[in-house]
Amino acid sequence: MKDLFSLGKAAGSKAGLPPGSIVYVGREREGTPRLSLIQYDGGGAEEHVLDSVDECRDRLANDKVNWLNIDGIHDVSVIKSVGEQFNLHPLLLEDVANSHQRAKTESYSNTVFTVTKMLRLGNDNEQIIAEQVSFILCGNLLITFQEQSGDVFGVIRDRITTGKGRVRNADAGYLFYSLLDAIVDSYFLILEFLGDRLAVLEDAVTTDPQPDALAHLHRLKHEVVYLRRCVWPMRDVVNSIMRDTGGTISDSTQIFLRDLYGHIIQIMDSIESCRDILSGLTDLYLSMISNRMNEVMKVLTIIATIFIPLTFLAGIYGMNFEMMPELHWPWAYPATLGVMAVIAGGMLVYFRRKRWL
Amino acid sequence: MKDLFSLGKAAGSKAGLPPGSIVYVGREREGTPRLSLIQYDGGGAEEHVLDSVDECRDRLANDKVNWLNIDGIHDVSVIKSVGEQFNLHPLLLEDVANSHQRAKTESYSNTVFTVTKMLRLGNDNEQIIAEQVSFILCGNLLITFQEQSGDVFGVIRDRITTGKGRVRNADAGYLFYSLLDAIVDSYFLILEFLGDRLAVLEDAVTTDPQPDALAHLHRLKHEVVYLRRCVWPMRDVVNSIMRDTGGTISDSTQIFLRDLYGHIIQIMDSIESCRDILSGLTDLYLSMISNRMNEVMKVLTIIATIFIPLTFLAGIYGMNFEMMPELHWPWAYPATLGVMAVIAGGMLVYFRRKRWL
Amino acid sequence: MKDLFSLGKAAGSKAGLPPGSIVYVGREREGTPRLSLIQYDGGGAEEHVLDSVDECRDRLANDKVNWLNIDGIHDVSVIKSVGEQFNLHPLLLEDVANSHQRAKTESYSNTVFTVTKMLRLGNDNEQIIAEQVSFILCGNLLITFQEQSGDVFGVIRDRITTGKGRVRNADAGYLFYSLLDAIVDSYFLILEFLGDRLAVLEDAVTTDPQPDALAHLHRLKHEVVYLRRCVWPMRDVVNSIMRDTGGTISDSTQIFLRDLYGHIIQIMDSIESCRDILSGLTDLYLSMISNRMNEVMKVLTIIATIFIPLTFLAGIYGMNFEMMPELHWPWAYPATLGVMAVIAGGMLVYFRRKRWL
Amino acid sequence: MKDLFSLGKAAGSKAGLPPGSIVYVGREREGTPRLSLIQYDGGGAEEHVLDSVDECRDRLANDKVNWLNIDGIHDVSVIKSVGEQFNLHPLLLEDVANSHQRAKTESYSNTVFTVTKMLRLGNDNEQIIAEQVSFILCGNLLITFQEQSGDVFGVIRDRITTGKGRVRNADAGYLFYSLLDAIVDSYFLILEFLGDRLAVLEDAVTTDPQPDALAHLHRLKHEVVYLRRCVWPMRDVVNSIMRDTGGTISDSTQIFLRDLYGHIIQIMDSIESCRDILSGLTDLYLSMISNRMNEVMKVLTIIATIFIPLTFLAGIYGMNFEMMPELHWPWAYPATLGVMAVIAGGMLVYFRRKRWL
Amino acid sequence: MKDLFSLGKAAGSKAGLPPGSIVYVGREREGTPRLSLIQYDGGGAEEHVLDSVDECRDRLANDKVNWLNIDGIHDVSVIKSVGEQFNLHPLLLEDVANSHQRAKTESYSNTVFTVTKMLRLGNDNEQIIAEQVSFILCGNLLITFQEQSGDVFGVIRDRITTGKGRVRNADAGYLFYSLLDAIVDSYFLILEFLGDRLAVLEDAVTTDPQPDALAHLHRLKHEVVYLRRCVWPMRDVVNSIMRDTGGTISDSTQIFLRDLYGHIIQIMDSIESCRDILSGLTDLYLSMISNRMNEVMKVLTIIATIFIPLTFLAGIYGMNFEMMPELHWPWAYPATLGVMAVIAGGMLVYFRRKRWL
Repeated sequence: MKDLFSLGKAAGSKAGLPPGSIVYVGREREGTPRLSLIQYDGGGAEEHVLDSVDECRDRLANDKVNWLNIDGIHDVSVIKSVGEQFNLHPLLLEDVANSHQRAKTESYSNTVFTVTKMLRLGNDNEQIIAEQVSFILCGNLLITFQEQSGDVFGVIRDRITTGKGRVRNADAGYLFYSLLDAIVDSYFLILEFLGDRLAVLEDAVTTDPQPDALAHLHRLKHEVVYLRRCVWPMRDVVNSIMRDTGGTISDSTQIFLRDLYGHIIQIMDSIESCRDILSGLTDLYLSMISNRMNEVMKVLTIIATIFIPLTFLAGIYGMNFEMMPELHWPWAYPATLGVMAVIAGGMLVYFRRKRWL
Repeated sequence: MKDLFSLGKAAGSKAGLPPGSIVYVGREREGTPRLSLIQYDGGGAEEHVLDSVDECRDRLANDKVNWLNIDGIHDVSVIKSVGEQFNLHPLLLEDVANSHQRAKTESYSNTVFTVTKMLRLGNDNEQIIAEQVSFILCGNLLITFQEQSGDVFGVIRDRITTGKGRVRNADAGYLFYSLLDAIVDSYFLILEFLGDRLAVLEDAVTTDPQPDALAHLHRLKHEVVYLRRCVWPMRDVVNSIMRDTGGTISDSTQIFLRDLYGHIIQIMDSIESCRDILSGLTDLYLSMISNRMNEVMKVLTIIATIFIPLTFLAGIYGMNFEMMPELHWPWAYPATLGVMAVIAGGMLVYFRRKRWL
Repeated sequence: MKDLFSLGKAAGSKAGLPPGSIVYVGREREGTPRLSLIQYDGGGAEEHVLDSVDECRDRLANDKVNWLNIDGIHDVSVIKSVGEQFNLHPLLLEDVANSHQRAKTESYSNTVFTVTKMLRLGNDNEQIIAEQVSFILCGNLLITFQEQSGDVFGVIRDRITTGKGRVRNADAGYLFYSLLDAIVDSYFLILEFLGDRLAVLEDAVTTDPQPDALAHLHRLKHEVVYLRRCVWPMRDVVNSIMRDTGGTISDSTQIFLRDLYGHIIQIMDSIESCRDILSGLTDLYLSMISNRMNEVMKVLTIIATIFIPLTFLAGIYGMNFEMMPELHWPWAYPATLGVMAVIAGGMLVYFRRKRWL
Repeated sequence: MKDLFSLGKAAGSKAGLPPGSIVYVGREREGTPRLSLIQYDGGGAEEHVLDSVDECRDRLANDKVNWLNIDGIHDVSVIKSVGEQFNLHPLLLEDVANSHQRAKTESYSNTVFTVTKMLRLGNDNEQIIAEQVSFILCGNLLITFQEQSGDVFGVIRDRITTGKGRVRNADAGYLFYSLLDAIVDSYFLILEFLGDRLAVLEDAVTTDPQPDALAHLHRLKHEVVYLRRCVWPMRDVVNSIMRDTGGTISDSTQIFLRDLYGHIIQIMDSIESCRDILSGLTDLYLSMISNRMNEVMKVLTIIATIFIPLTFLAGIYGMNFEMMPELHWPWAYPATLGVMAVIAGGMLVYFRRKRWL
Repeated sequence: MKDLFSLGKAAGSKAGLPPGSIVYVGREREGTPRLSLIQYDGGGAEEHVLDSVDECRDRLANDKVNWLNIDGIHDVSVIKSVGEQFNLHPLLLEDVANSHQRAKTESYSNTVFTVTKMLRLGNDNEQIIAEQVSFILCGNLLITFQEQSGDVFGVIRDRITTGKGRVRNADAGYLFYSLLDAIVDSYFLILEFLGDRLAVLEDAVTTDPQPDALAHLHRLKHEVVYLRRCVWPMRDVVNSIMRDTGGTISDSTQIFLRDLYGHIIQIMDSIESCRDILSGLTDLYLSMISNRMNEVMKVLTIIATIFIPLTFLAGIYGMNFEMMPELHWPWAYPATLGVMAVIAGGMLVYFRRKRWL
């Protein structure tokens, strides 16, 4: 929930600063950002942990793909020095530091800048952790910024290290695509997670609706809305990359981006179905509750309408009038009981006719 | 229900693999895929059951239409060898193996690749069976992949064998169209199946709404949503085939594709109407239930409001006070009964005025 | 209702046939189709009832407008012979025979083919009768297919016979427009019919909502949805005719088509308003019911809460304990009655404060 | 309400007539149409009341702006003679006479034809009066048709007479704009009128919802829907005038039309907000009612659940068994009363825990 | 609420005036408008408080950026004299004075005119204050009109004075952007304010729904609708400025405008999510209420159905018939109590089976 409105908060806390101010707006974090540089070509790959951005500059290899990954954007000085070293536009750096961006792609002369949301399940498998990942693609250098250590890029690193797959023989654009693909894959995992919970809820509502079901539905809807907000702009992102970037992305990578675009459409499709089912489920739940209340009311009505007249009859003969001739008739008591049985029986027949029984 | 979110599941289980990895993600199946090659021209048609993809390569006839059908995509090695023999893009093969694709068409140089969902009713006529069918059209060769044996193409095979209809005198593009047409026809059958169930439900809700009606409505809605998800992208598929493929589809086949496009629009139209009716039916059902509860409440209220005051009156004269002069009046008992009758009558008049009776 | 899903049914019963198969899918009908040929020019008009399609071919006059009308498409042989005589595409003939088409326009070389739905009120003025009318415009020949005899074209025939209006001096394209205009006029009549019923329902719901109102609303909604499905594609139909057909439609007729287009927009507009009102009416109805239940509950609550405590009090002094000193006090009975009156009065004041009375 | 479906009615009553038939379809009116001709240029302005359309023809001044206003379209002969005098297309005249048109603009060679709805409040300030106004702009002649006398153009006439504002120095196109502007201003007044009523309803629903509130909401919704139907097409109207008319509208007037367009967008905006608020208000109302019923139910439940067990207890000791030892214990009566008090107290504590009190 | 329909009111009170009439339509205000002129270039900045518009004209410096800010548009003479001094179009001045404009941008030859809404929180932090700000950008002169003193531009003034940020070295176009940016930042603050209140409401509804929650939801919805109406047109505004204005906005500022555009999209996104959550919350609230009523009903039903039959039984043996043999059996009383216990126990078992307990 907090995440949902954090957009407003982030920007709010920055209001009043000049555009291009690089200010970190996320949760408070400690520790130094971790810089790592992976360099590879068809021949091999090596990873360096760096002390400073300057060191990266020195190590850059023009004939290799250079992937500079920075975990931690709370230390704004690192972002600033990246900006200086690679001559980046201040607005771009501002967007990197502002961890509440909507996913988007922008091109600054020869640089492609992309912001995305990476989603993961927390360790308890119960919570969705969102993290902003920014990409700066500039020739054969790809810079990625993450909010904290831990990501969904492990498989890509493995492929680079072991030389499996296409990535080690391809350019930085393909690396960029691979990372985007890993992020979109993470959406599939979240979608599966939400889909499972939806299926559980659906079973629960259909068989035995509990009062807390609606709160669960509400929370699930919240999360689907959040996922939707992450995925929706990705369509434009991939679309822009495919259309706008001229020579940055090679033609062979374009086919992969087209495939990625298809995946995003597929996720959006599933999300819309989720929303449909969720709203149908809410209706179903309310109707189940209403059905139950109906049943409760019926029981009450049947019991009350049968016994209230009988009790009245018993009350009549419980009156203490002196002159009540029936009281003295010997068969009055069994006759009264008989009348009561007839009334009760009549009621039951009536209810059966009304199909309440 | 499971099918609905299987998109997420499929992709989820593949997360972490490099793009282009050919992995089967559907239900586990056993047995060897069945390969059959149908070759025909105006003069005649013959069908071969093949042992391997290599055999197909050898048998290909340039002057005939070649239709290679493969039942079973769980054996990834077959897909791979098809890819090698016919030099297909890895992403294309990945999509063939991933049985949770959204319908789509893509063109790779001289190859048209199309993924669709084929729907059938199960043997019990109660369940919808969805199966992914992939088409690869490349010159006079059409390759189709199905998940399992059993399909809706029997009529096409008959026409090829017997030489009825236009298909045997036409090219592979027309065969491709014919198979797509058979798939779209299968949607009509499913739509009819759902429409029949909707009509039954509509009758049931209008005449005598049962508590389980809403669960039925919910399930039906589920299936309509699923059908919609299958049909919706078909529009783009046929549209793309009509626009994009240059020389692959001949002009005379274009008219048939236009007709097919019209059919898809018609199905989408009917599905939207179904959804309208379904949502109206849900409202109707809830209102019928509410009407009933209203009626139940009225009976309770009438009985209770008539007898509660009377019972109170009887209670009064059931008190044991020594000094209750009424008890000794000789006409007190009949008078009390009379007063009770007047009260009850007044109530009845009041209720009739209120139109509760 | 049946009509609504008949699209699915029609196509379903044709599934398995090759494209271009001419199969009638509507209700079973008997009798021979009736063929009539009207020929006219500025000088005069004459009508012939024909025995066969061949006869038509012979009678065609190049310097006149020829209107061949065929009532009855259940005899497929007639459609086939029309196809042969005038050299029409098989898909076109298939669409003529399939009486469950969505309205559409297609152009085949020099032929314009249009399918529409003609709506009429039944003899009882209670039911809407839908009939498919197909138009084939080819030079100065217009062929129309209807499902049965009886149509909304009487006025056009009169104008041709009597020479009133513009039609006799115009070409076949104007005749085509005139018939389309008559069909669109029939939608206005149906709209008026539905609007009247809606107004009646609105009055009924606002003044005295009956339990069956919602079923009426549901049926009306059904019919509005059906009308909408007929009208919606007409927009594209007229639009296509205006744009696509090159020389078939003369410029002076274009202005009339533009006017017709305006009428269709107007109907669509009114239908949308109808839907708005209908859905508002459903809400209103449900709220009226809910208001009533509220009132019922209030009466029950008032009666019960007043008398239940009093009855309890009476019950207290109906107990048979030996040691109940109150029973022997001489003023106990009137005092008890007084206490009861005070309680009842207090309750009434409370209820008035709560604004329940 | 009647107005809402009058579109259908109007066209319905014309069904069967040839296109271009000039038939008045509105309410029956009597009296002769009033023709007035205002002629002005920068130098001065004069108004003539005319006897016939012929007289207008004679009086036309080429060097002045001529505004012919006709109040009353029920006398079709006047429309016809206007058509003859100024050589207008029959379809145009048909639209003038049919008072149930949707707002639209059409251009016939050098003539711009526009239909709009003018809205006014009735004398009782309670009802909205809609009237169709048609404009025919042709060079320096502007013809306007109104259904009856009384309009919102008084201010324009004043400006022409007194020479205030820009209008007297501008061309007929500017006069046309000024009249459209007056009509759009009338929508603002109606919007204000509806907004005021909405505010009143909102207060009423929030503080003390009455049963009739929903009917009021429904009526208001009706009127908002009607206003929307009037305003919506005006956007296209102004847009078409700005784009289509070539030299008819001068460049300096274009800026004013752009401003007018902005006003229409603003009204549409406000109408959408109105609809939002209205639908929210309906929900609020239903919930207030539901809250109330909840409160009623609580009171009933509290009273009933407290007294029913106590009454049962009193009933126990009201039984007439011979062998009830408790009846003879001296402290039995006060003890029973004490137990009753404990039960009642316990119930009250329970209800407070449940937060029902 | 008042603000919402003020659009209508404003225009309504102007109806009847010629276009271009400069009339103030907002709340009545007193006092003289305050005119201040800020002039700056890279070298320094100075601010003058002016007595009249004429003084501004004299002071204009061609080699500096001139920012003329006017607080107070209720004194129309000031607006008029600005119009005369700088030769502005009357429609533009009319829009400045009409404080109920929708945000829009228009270009008049070399002048860019923009209207926006500036939102602030009132001093009590409870109310949203909306104020219209108009911008006229013309070369190196930027004129801003505000309704009253107090704005969100303080930070911009500080940056100009102190020379911080980019603004002092940039042109008037960048100043224009900076002010727009400050206004959009103010929307973020309002969004945060609304988001906080939504979160509070969400907690309240989920844990303990109070009857007034819906009214709060309704008010919040009102404000979200209002914010939406302010933000929505801003998208077009920024878009128009980016596209239309030719040389007025320099290329380097374009990048900043693109960033601003992204912010607006982000706000719109958040607003849509807000609306989603709000509507979900309304459903949740209604369901919580319904759940509660259900619980209340259950308690009532359980108590009533248990005790009503028992009370009836007690009533039976409270009858005064002479011939009731049971009354004389010694074990009748305990047996009756036992039967009652069995009935009550059976009921409890039944309710537990029904899962009501």
